[in-house]
Amino acid sequence: MTATVEEHAALVRALVEPVLPHETETVQLAEAAGRVLGGIVLSPVDLPRFRNSQMDGFAVRAADLPGPLPIVGEIPARPGSPAPLEPGTAVRIMTGAVVPDGADAVIPIEDTAVSDGRVSVLRPRAAGEYVRERGGDSRAGDELLPAGIRLSSRHLAALAAAGITAAPVRRRTRIAIITTGSELVPLGREPGPGQIVDANAVALHAAVRAAGAEVAFEARVTDDAAAFRIALDAATGAADLVLTSGGISMGEHEVVREVLGPLGGTIGHVAMQPGGPQATAAVDGVPVIAFPGNPVSTQLSFEVFVAPLLRSHAGLPAARREVRLLDEPLRSVPGKRQFLRGRAVGHERVALVSGPGSHLVAGLAASDLLLVVPEQTTELAKGDSVETIAL
Amino acid sequence: MTATVEEHAALVRALVEPVLPHETETVQLAEAAGRVLGGIVLSPVDLPRFRNSQMDGFAVRAADLPGPLPIVGEIPARPGSPAPLEPGTAVRIMTGAVVPDGADAVIPIEDTAVSDGRVSVLRPRAAGEYVRERGGDSRAGDELLPAGIRLSSRHLAALAAAGITAAPVRRRTRIAIITTGSELVPLGREPGPGQIVDANAVALHAAVRAAGAEVAFEARVTDDAAAFRIALDAATGAADLVLTSGGISMGEHEVVREVLGPLGGTIGHVAMQPGGPQATAAVDGVPVIAFPGNPVSTQLSFEVFVAPLLRSHAGLPAARREVRLLDEPLRSVPGKRQFLRGRAVGHERVALVSGPGSHLVAGLAASDLLLVVPEQTTELAKGDSVETIAL
Repeated sequence: MTATVEEHAALVRALVEPVLPHETETVQLAEAAGRVLGGIVLSPVDLPRFRNSQMDGFAVRAADLPGPLPIVGEIPARPGSPAPLEPGTAVRIMTGAVVPDGADAVIPIEDTAVSDGRVSVLRPRAAGEYVRERGGDSRAGDELLPAGIRLSSRHLAALAAAGITAAPVRRRTRIAIITTGSELVPLGREPGPGQIVDANAVALHAAVRAAGAEVAFEARVTDDAAAFRIALDAATGAADLVLTSGGISMGEHEVVREVLGPLGGTIGHVAMQPGGPQATAAVDGVPVIAFPGNPVSTQLSFEVFVAPLLRSHAGLPAARREVRLLDEPLRSVPGKRQFLRGRAVGHERVALVSGPGSHLVAGLAASDLLLVVPEQTTELAKGDSVETIAL
Repeated sequence: MTATVEEHAALVRALVEPVLPHETETVQLAEAAGRVLGGIVLSPVDLPRFRNSQMDGFAVRAADLPGPLPIVGEIPARPGSPAPLEPGTAVRIMTGAVVPDGADAVIPIEDTAVSDGRVSVLRPRAAGEYVRERGGDSRAGDELLPAGIRLSSRHLAALAAAGITAAPVRRRTRIAIITTGSELVPLGREPGPGQIVDANAVALHAAVRAAGAEVAFEARVTDDAAAFRIALDAATGAADLVLTSGGISMGEHEVVREVLGPLGGTIGHVAMQPGGPQATAAVDGVPVIAFPGNPVSTQLSFEVFVAPLLRSHAGLPAARREVRLLDEPLRSVPGKRQFLRGRAVGHERVALVSGPGSHLVAGLAASDLLLVVPEQTTELAKGDSVETIAL
């Protein structure tokens, strides 16, 4: 039974979305950048906290203008409360300094003339000018930040200004990664005859983190059903979501298929290339999304089916999709959506990179776009439009 | 003397670009995601490492087809070297398994019929079909990855597949941050009368890291020239680049101006709002980029003058700029480029958020775009086009 890409994506979404975490944890602001705010934050104070000067100049009563007014003191931007301003006087004031009671305007220094200890105002000013009112930015009890935003420097600045030292953020999704295959050796061990380095563990680890989730468990198992079952149990205990690679095609020794099938998993085929074999299951209530093991298939399957869900949950933008013009003709398999590897050429065009083979891991690394060739398309000419997804 | 935004940006670029680091450090693949590859990486091995099967099926000699051929064994994807294939025979083979010497084609299982221990081929196949040749993805000595790319999961997968456990990456730019102002208290301390929390330290720290650089030194000093000088000396010793906030306007107690001026710094004014006062210097060969201290001014100055240089060096994309249609009319100060805060409305429009004041830190947090109003523009009508920069 072959599913469409959309059907399988819907199946994965239905399994994964309910387990994406919505509980929050509290992190210090220094660690909060990039995290998703778990709830609304109300301002605990007025911002500005006190009435202060927008300019370097003179604090005055507008009614006393244009002067000349005797300069009776100076208020720097320093701790402390200045004395009230006496009517008919002026006080030097620095940007950010407390505007004294009694003053209702600040005259910028460039609009004044000072002579003999007195200041005259060259341009008339109304009450309130250049005075930053207490609470003029945000009032105590107002919404300072809405829930669900991805925190960046400007949000942290607002929290800090309000004296908030830690923020409630959405817990990151915890992901378990199990790579399968008796031919795999871990990175750092030299492969012998018939062996290859497990690139999927490295790729999925980095891709999960780039999608704003965290890796809570990692295992690599041989094509041994008992070993996979042990790893799977540990994975479902540690994570919100389990990703596996390999072991779901139609050959012999397909351990993921052998284990997930009896657990009620859906072992199927999706009309796409690479990435035809796909499987899903829920084990002890934890979704298991099983990808085929060829490294390009694993990586594309993650990008197509899982990354969009994780990125959205983590407040990250979706991968950019745009239509480009083919730099060369191409052929495609009928009945399958083909994800070919390409590279942007200028702002409008795209060239093919490497070939369609699902083992071409260096070719995938050399590409920066996926070309999406629809199921019904068997060939495209140079100059034809094709949808691309940024990697 | 007033500089244009472009003139000041050129001044900052001329100071900063020479100190952006190009030496490399070696990091393990697990830590390499997001780092910029410091040099070309050549493949140390052929990829694939050995001739292997693209499909689950049968390894055969194409010349022996269509059979029937006796099935003489099975080659799973496991460690070891299979025996050569005898002419006139077939062997079961799994995806990724070593294609035995003597075999020159793989027949997918769905194109075969098995009966009585013999396999017949239903569709003729040529030599080479479904065989992944050794080195077909990348050959030993070929470029596996070019210098200067920002490493993501697919690059790490290619490095891992080639057995490369660590990558040479460009050292991150080391930034020192000095915030100045006697009115500042650190985050976590309750401000008293006339005091505010230092939001600039928090904002610059997060913004520096988001731009792919690292914070090597942080200090907060009062409006005391000697204290600033001590912090500055420590900063230039620790960092490639020093950023400061505050102390450069025309008022009294402007410690950054007082210290940088005699050191040959350029203390000036830029025709922009917020962010008019701007200063630069080179102290002991280390560039010092001094921003005004109002929190919106500090943050915008970093985004406009420094972030583009750091992001480019770290392999990050530039902030997205696009033209949008104003949702409401606005007025702007003649002779200054105004950076107003706004929020995207749908795909095409933009609304103003908060006001133009440089103290509106909550207003900046509520915005997601900057509107760029050109120097010569004094008003724009609802529906007019305006350039925006994504925050």
